[in-house]
Amino acid sequence: MSIPTLPAFQDEYPDALAHCYGCGRLNQHGHQIKSYWEAGGQYSVCHFQPKPYHIAVPGYVYGGLLASLVDCHATGTASAAARRALAETSALQDTPRFLTASLNVDFLKPTPLGPVLELRGLVSEIKGRKVVVEVQVFAQGVQTVRGRVVCVQATPDLLKDLGIDT
Amino acid sequence: MSIPTLPAFQDEYPDALAHCYGCGRLNQHGHQIKSYWEAGGQYSVCHFQPKPYHIAVPGYVYGGLLASLVDCHATGTASAAARRALAETSALQDTPRFLTASLNVDFLKPTPLGPVLELRGLVSEIKGRKVVVEVQVFAQGVQTVRGRVVCVQATPDLLKDLGIDT
Repeated sequence: MSIPTLPAFQDEYPDALAHCYGCGRLNQHGHQIKSYWEAGGQYSVCHFQPKPYHIAVPGYVYGGLLASLVDCHATGTASAAARRALAETSALQDTPRFLTASLNVDFLKPTPLGPVLELRGLVSEIKGRKVVVEVQVFAQGVQTVRGRVVCVQATPDLLKDLGIDT
Repeated sequence: MSIPTLPAFQDEYPDALAHCYGCGRLNQHGHQIKSYWEAGGQYSVCHFQPKPYHIAVPGYVYGGLLASLVDCHATGTASAAARRALAETSALQDTPRFLTASLNVDFLKPTPLGPVLELRGLVSEIKGRKVVVEVQVFAQGVQTVRGRVVCVQATPDLLKDLGIDT
């Protein structure tokens, strides 16, 4: 496991958008996942230790938690990818925040409870406000889950409609 | 909202399989969702009140929670549908328990936090060990989420491999 020295993707979210149960640093009840680039930005990683009660059946991690991790790691990766693209082409203003349009999760085999899980995210498409992220979940080096998440950038107008002032 | 008088699908699970974070009656930390047949068994329903901290952005329900509810309501519906099919054709032994093979969730619009959510599940395929369930999530009568879950029956051999003795 790498020892990150940079801020996590989620640490770049503005305060108004940092309350997510899965990834918001300001949600004291939530998972507060942290995602980073690895291998020079070729893919993103997130490490997560499920709690003893995050089970589907005794000894195995709950699928809803795995779906949640896939979801938030993907939207974080989408945000970082869009931020990187913007930084290359223009003056970056705010970190773009993404919402999930579609979440697909295939449970390839049971995920054992105990080891720290590693998620890897690969951006497979980035076009306009849409970013598609493929996610893999590994337990002790064995892939147990495959995810695909279609993320859509939350525009200021959408956020305003939701009553959020960034 | 109907007032159920029958045991919920999840109340029929054997104790060894009632520890799921999403739907296990024996998981004190979990959501403990309850699902029932409605309209004479044409579809299943589940009502759930998200907690104030189950948010994606302030005022709107966290997608990972919605995915979790879709998942567990679908596997519960699969279990009840298989149980019903078995009861019609042979002497029912144990309530069959289903695991999720594939979970697909489309977030059609933001789900407001506050109202009790209603999930409806419709069995679209039942064949051998496989049951496919289509799930809708409604907030105050407005559909916000569409889910499709491929559920696979956990055989005694699989459960034994997982170290679970039912």
